This record gives sequence, structure tokens and C-alpha cells, in this order.
Amino acid sequence: MATFKTLPGFREFYPEDYAQRKHIFQIWRQVARRFAFQEFDGPVLESLELFTAKSGPEIESQLFCFEDKGGRQVSLRPELTPTLARMVAARANGLKRPIKWFSIGDNFRYERQQKGRLRCFTQLNVDLLGEPGPAAEVELIALLIQSLLGFGLNEEDFYVRLSDRNLWMLYLAALGYEGEAIAGILGVVDKWERMPEDKLIAQLAEVAGDKADQLKASVDAFLKLDSVEGIRDCFAALESDEEGKSQLSERLADWQVLLEGLSAMGLGAFIKIDLSIVRGLAYYTGFVFEAFDKKGEFRALAGGGRYDALVKKMGGPDMPAVGFGMGDVVLGELLKSRGKMPTFVDTVDFFAVIGGDEEKPVALADIALLRQAGYSVEYQLKGQAFGKQFKAATSSGARFALIYGSEELEKGIVKLRNLADRSEQDIPRSQLLEAVRELI
Amino acid sequence: MATFKTLPGFREFYPEDYAQRKHIFQIWRQVARRFAFQEFDGPVLESLELFTAKSGPEIESQLFCFEDKGGRQVSLRPELTPTLARMVAARANGLKRPIKWFSIGDNFRYERQQKGRLRCFTQLNVDLLGEPGPAAEVELIALLIQSLLGFGLNEEDFYVRLSDRNLWMLYLAALGYEGEAIAGILGVVDKWERMPEDKLIAQLAEVAGDKADQLKASVDAFLKLDSVEGIRDCFAALESDEEGKSQLSERLADWQVLLEGLSAMGLGAFIKIDLSIVRGLAYYTGFVFEAFDKKGEFRALAGGGRYDALVKKMGGPDMPAVGFGMGDVVLGELLKSRGKMPTFVDTVDFFAVIGGDEEKPVALADIALLRQAGYSVEYQLKGQAFGKQFKAATSSGARFALIYGSEELEKGIVKLRNLADRSEQDIPRSQLLEAVRELI
Repeated sequence: MATFKTLPGFREFYPEDYAQRKHIFQIWRQVARRFAFQEFDGPVLESLELFTAKSGPEIESQLFCFEDKGGRQVSLRPELTPTLARMVAARANGLKRPIKWFSIGDNFRYERQQKGRLRCFTQLNVDLLGEPGPAAEVELIALLIQSLLGFGLNEEDFYVRLSDRNLWMLYLAALGYEGEAIAGILGVVDKWERMPEDKLIAQLAEVAGDKADQLKASVDAFLKLDSVEGIRDCFAALESDEEGKSQLSERLADWQVLLEGLSAMGLGAFIKIDLSIVRGLAYYTGFVFEAFDKKGEFRALAGGGRYDALVKKMGGPDMPAVGFGMGDVVLGELLKSRGKMPTFVDTVDFFAVIGGDEEKPVALADIALLRQAGYSVEYQLKGQAFGKQFKAATSSGARFALIYGSEELEKGIVKLRNLADRSEQDIPRSQLLEAVRELI
Repeated sequence: MATFKTLPGFREFYPEDYAQRKHIFQIWRQVARRFAFQEFDGPVLESLELFTAKSGPEIESQLFCFEDKGGRQVSLRPELTPTLARMVAARANGLKRPIKWFSIGDNFRYERQQKGRLRCFTQLNVDLLGEPGPAAEVELIALLIQSLLGFGLNEEDFYVRLSDRNLWMLYLAALGYEGEAIAGILGVVDKWERMPEDKLIAQLAEVAGDKADQLKASVDAFLKLDSVEGIRDCFAALESDEEGKSQLSERLADWQVLLEGLSAMGLGAFIKIDLSIVRGLAYYTGFVFEAFDKKGEFRALAGGGRYDALVKKMGGPDMPAVGFGMGDVVLGELLKSRGKMPTFVDTVDFFAVIGGDEEKPVALADIALLRQAGYSVEYQLKGQAFGKQFKAATSSGARFALIYGSEELEKGIVKLRNLADRSEQDIPRSQLLEAVRELI
């Protein structure tokens, strides 16, 4: 007989694991609701075209894609954003703006498995559409931080690295680069911290020609910036015309609003300006951010940014947008490692202890009544001696035992035992619900 | 620009649709917990073999199956039961029995779309393993009925048709049929109500040879039975030996326990004995049941039964089991058609009305504080005149407006307006949380 297994990179959740999963979902939902975001959902299987339209055909190598029985090219979704963009595009005129939506769902990527990276993971996606200014980023980043706080994590545990693709564009343009070259350089910047110097220069030479050495020094300086003043100084030496100057000053004003907003919310301590964050995805157009554990032990906890061009690309109107995703895998690992993942014990309100066949119908009637009223009730399906049933009642974690013996049956009562203090009381069966409502 | 669409048979859920979806999930979860079932989950993508091992290779024609990038034959799950059986089999010795588990998740079938049948649907699965006797069926069927009651449906809306594959086996064996022929006949019984008489007889002739006419009359009689006494009478005329007699009497005793248990729980009125229910799936071994709307407008709301052989087949020990599934599609249609699907309006606790740039940091600080304390707070991201903001506050459905004007700023207070009765009070900002805790 073959022993069946889950596919590599996929998980199954026994009840004790599911309880932790549910905890993560609950905090995500709670915090998103506090920020007045509404939950939505999309299908996990979509046309392959939806994903290649957003990310180009090269995405296919990472997808669980196939031809379905109707000859359609389809794919399990690697991310939710294209579905979101399609849904918003389809009803753009009917939706009140700003659109504040979140979703919790599975995504699928055919990637090499690594620590914190599985082939199927669940992600919280939060998106705010219709607001072009940095007030949107304030909301999103505040939500990101408050959701991590909601798990009991604090300033010692995590921080958010904040960067700006827009600023990179201005910076590289000021250095004389354009279109393709800028994209190429950002591709190298994305790997900057993980590559040895000679390899960096070689890769820069490929995308930036013979100025690679000089470019490397500039980028190194830019990557060191950690304040808005620093950014301003850096550009002061570079900016060459009035247009650039005014673009820069607008951008710095946006930075100011964003940082002051987060500070006003008491969240300034969680933010670190770090221009090395460019995010691999080509579609980001402005601020980008990633949350990390402070010890640097794990992959990113969350990441996102502004993507003003996507909704139009997916067939909708011009629609500024900013969003982030937070996966359950790295978050779960961090919570466990920091002792912030509670252990959950399922308990019931009542455990019915039933004498025998005579008492069973009476007990079943009360059990049904209590359940119907919203209480959880357990009992032994098999007939058992009283002693065994009491043992089961205690190990079930129930708060109360309801005892149905021949004596109780005769008197028309049920004996209620508090399993914590072992106190008992007799309750006329006709008043059971009322009596129970006073207890729980 | 291409307009993207969901795949046929797949759904997307805008927030107002998602709220209804969430309502269904909540009731399912609540009722399962009242019966002390624990939630678990498995992956939606599995080895194809897991499904063909359970259902035979012919299942493949209904599956979203494909070869993944690692050369594995994989499939989106058409049902959860094989995953459940694998999980239970893998830890059979460590799990406390009876195992009472439920799960809510997506299933996928490549089928022709019909009313109430989509290619992706969400299903509640409830399974009780480790208990061979009909007390397990009492729990499961009671849970099924109470969950429909939980949606506000009642006796006028739905009922449960109860049948018994075991009884069919005894009955057909008493008529002289064996193995293959019995399976074939049950296949025809499954379509009995939907086929014209001549076609029925032709199909019976194929599986049962030249006694088709006679068989049809017998089955017609058997299908008319609606009481345990009727079943007994029917067998009295047929039973030929002592072994059959004792098998029958055991079986009738199980029927008695099941029906009396459900009656004791006050659920007898929902049950209709109806032996035409045999359930298509070959793996059922005992009682089988399906819930239907009473007007007969919809497909089955839920269905399940006993499947004592499956866990062993999936590599585990002998493990009796009974379970049912309830999909969200037919249920949702029924709730809407009976006026039992609530409309949900997302509201927030507070809407902050903010004077200008001076007041904004102060307002943001309070907004962050309130959200951190668990309240939901909305505000306009863009600066706006007071009047517009009040209009937005009212249309948001918020219970209270928090007003931050220059006067309030100066006094160190915030004005709280009850948006229902328009009453106002001034709250010192330092006491905001305390004041709010008295309100909500």
C-alpha cells in the first residue's frame, strides 16, 4: 500500500496547527477592520494571461500553470494583485473611492523551497486604491505595523524599511541613465547586499556600460542615506535643471508627509529609511517598503508599495494604488521563535455524563437544546461507566458536567457539576436554559 | 486591451458578496464548535494518485489535473475526504478517538456548469472517525440539521432523506445478487427517479440479466418504504436463512438507535426515510443521507454517510468513519430565495473630522490610539471642508464623529458627536480612551 504524502512545499494543518493559523487570520482581520478595510476574495485559479499580462511571460517558469480540459491556459495564482486589479477595473465607476480592500488567501509559486518559502502560502493582501498622495502610504504602513503589534511583537522585534522607486528614477536620471538602463541598474541594486563587489561591478557594467565603477560609488553613497535631509543633500550635488529641482522638491514633500504622518501615529520608531529596498517587481512606481525582524534571522515579513499604473494596464481607468502583502509562513516562524504564538486548547462548555439507555433520550434532548442555544456540548457516544465518563469530562477541559443518572431522571432534574471547584447544584430540567444563562 | 475575466465556473467576491460568504462560514464554524468538532485544513493541490486511489482512474475526467514542473502528476482536490483519510491514517495511533474534525475549503471539479454546480465551490466537511455505531450518525445528522437551523431555515424549508447502503446490500443479496451486479443495480437506483420506465428496465437488464422486470417491481416496493416497520415487513417476505435474519435484526436495531436519537434531540420531523438515496460514490458502507429543500427547487444541500473502509484503503488502520459535506453554492441560493441571507453593512465606530494641517497630527495620534485599542476608525485621506467630511462621516455609517478643529486643538479636547442623535460632548484628549470605553 502506497503511503500518500503532501506535495513538496504544501502543508496540512492538524487541529493544533490550524488553531495557530486561525489566530493569524483573526489578528489580520481585526486590524484590517480597525482601519476600515473591507474583505474580498478572488479565485485561486485564473487565466494564465492575467499573470503574464502583469509580469511578462518570464513569470511562467514560477507558476503552477497548465491547460485545462477545455483547452484554456490557466494558472494557480502566484499573487492576488492581478485579480484585485481586474475586479477594480471592472467596476471602477461604481466603487466609492478610496477603495480600501483586503483579502486573505492562498498563493502558489513553483520555486525552490527555502526556509520561510513554500510553494503554497497564505497571504494577507491590503490595498488602497484611488488616492495618489502619501496619505495612502501612511494608512497602509500604519496598518502593517499595527497588525504586527497585534501579534504581540514590538519595536525590539521588527521594523519597516522604507524606500522610493520614484527617487531612484530621479537619481539615476540625474546621473544620465534612461529607461532600460535604469531598470537594469535597479535589478542590480535589488541584489546589492547579497553580492560581492567584483560581481556587482561586472553586473553594473552589463547594464550601465563603462561608467560602472563611478556608478557603484554613487549608488553606495545613495544607499547609505537614512534621512530626508540626507536625500536633499545628495541631490543638491547632482541636480542639473529646474525641472529636476521641482520634481525633487515635490518628492521630498511627499517624504515629509509620509514620515510625519507615521510619527504622529506614534510609529516613527518602526521606520528606517533604506534605499536598498527596490522590490523585484517591475510594477512599483513610488514608495516601497518591507518589514523585517530586527535580528535579521528571517526573510521579509511583508512588502509592498505604490503601483499607480497597474489598474489601467489591466483594462481599467487611471487609478493610483498602494498595497502590501504579508505571508503566513515567515510570520508564523517569527512568532514561534519569539514566544508569541499562543497554544490553543479547544474546550467545551458542558460535558454530559449519561447513566444508560433510560437516561440517554433525556440527555440528548438537553444536549440538543443547549447546542441550539449556542453552547458547546460533548458526551461519550458509547455507553460507559460513570467513572470513565467523568474522567473523559475532566480531560475534555469542559467547564461543567451535566449528570443524568437514574435518580436525576426520576426527579426531573439534572445535576450540574462545576469541574473546576467540584461544586454541584440540582437544576429542574424545565429551567435548564435559564440556569445555564446565568452561568455562562 | 484585453478585458480579463474569471474562468467559467469560478467566482470572485466583491466585499458585499464576501460578507455573505463570511456569514455562511461563521454559522458553519459556530455550529461545528457547539458539537465539539475541531477545525483542520489540507492543501488544495495534491498528488493525482491520492484521488484515483480512492475513486478509480475514471475520476480523472472530472479533475483539474496536470503535470507540475517537477514531473509530478498533480490535481486540484475535487473533495477533501482523501486528504482527511491520509491525515488520519498518518497519525491514527496518536489521535484521541472519536476523531471529530471539520474543515471549510475550496474544491474543484471540471464539470458541465449547471444551476447550483460550479467548477470551484467551498464546502463544509464534517467527519467523525473511530465510532462504528449509529451514535456517530446521530451526531453528524444532528449537526447537519442544526447548521441549517443556524441560518434561520426551518422545517418548512428543508428535510433530510435517510437511506442505508447496508440495507440495500442485504436486500439485493436476499434477491440473489452479488458483488458486481449489486454495484450495477445501485448505480441504476441512483438514477431511478430521473429515468423513464423503459430505460430503467433496459439498464437493469444490462446489470441484472433477464430478471429485470421482476427486479424493477421489487425495487419499486423497496423504494416506497418509509418506516422501520415497513423495512422489517419487506424483509420478512424475503429473508431465507438465519444469518440473513440476524443481520437484518442488527441492522434494524441500528435504525432504531439512529431514529430514536434524532427524535430525542427534537429533530425527528426533519427526517424522511427514503431508500432511493444511494449516493453515487462507491465508498459508502452504511447509512447515507442527503438534505434537500422541501420545495424540491434545488440540488442537494448536503450529503454524506458512513465510509468504514476508506482510512484503511489510504494506508491507515481499520477505522470506522462517517461524514458529510455541505457546499456553499446551493445553500447560498436557498438562503437568498427564502429571504434568509442578511445584507451586511460594514460600519466603523468613529469617523475623524479634521480641520487642517495643524490638526492632522493630533487627529492621527488619536486615530492610532483608538485603533490600537481595538476600535475601527475612518477619516478622509484628502484634506476637505468640514461640511464634506461630515457628509462622508454620515454616509460611512460611523456611530460617532470625532471633531478636530482649531478651537478643540487650542483647548486640548476633541468634540465627540453621536451621529444618531447629534448630541455632542467635549472630551479632554488625555482621557479619550477612558471616555470611549464608556461609550462602546
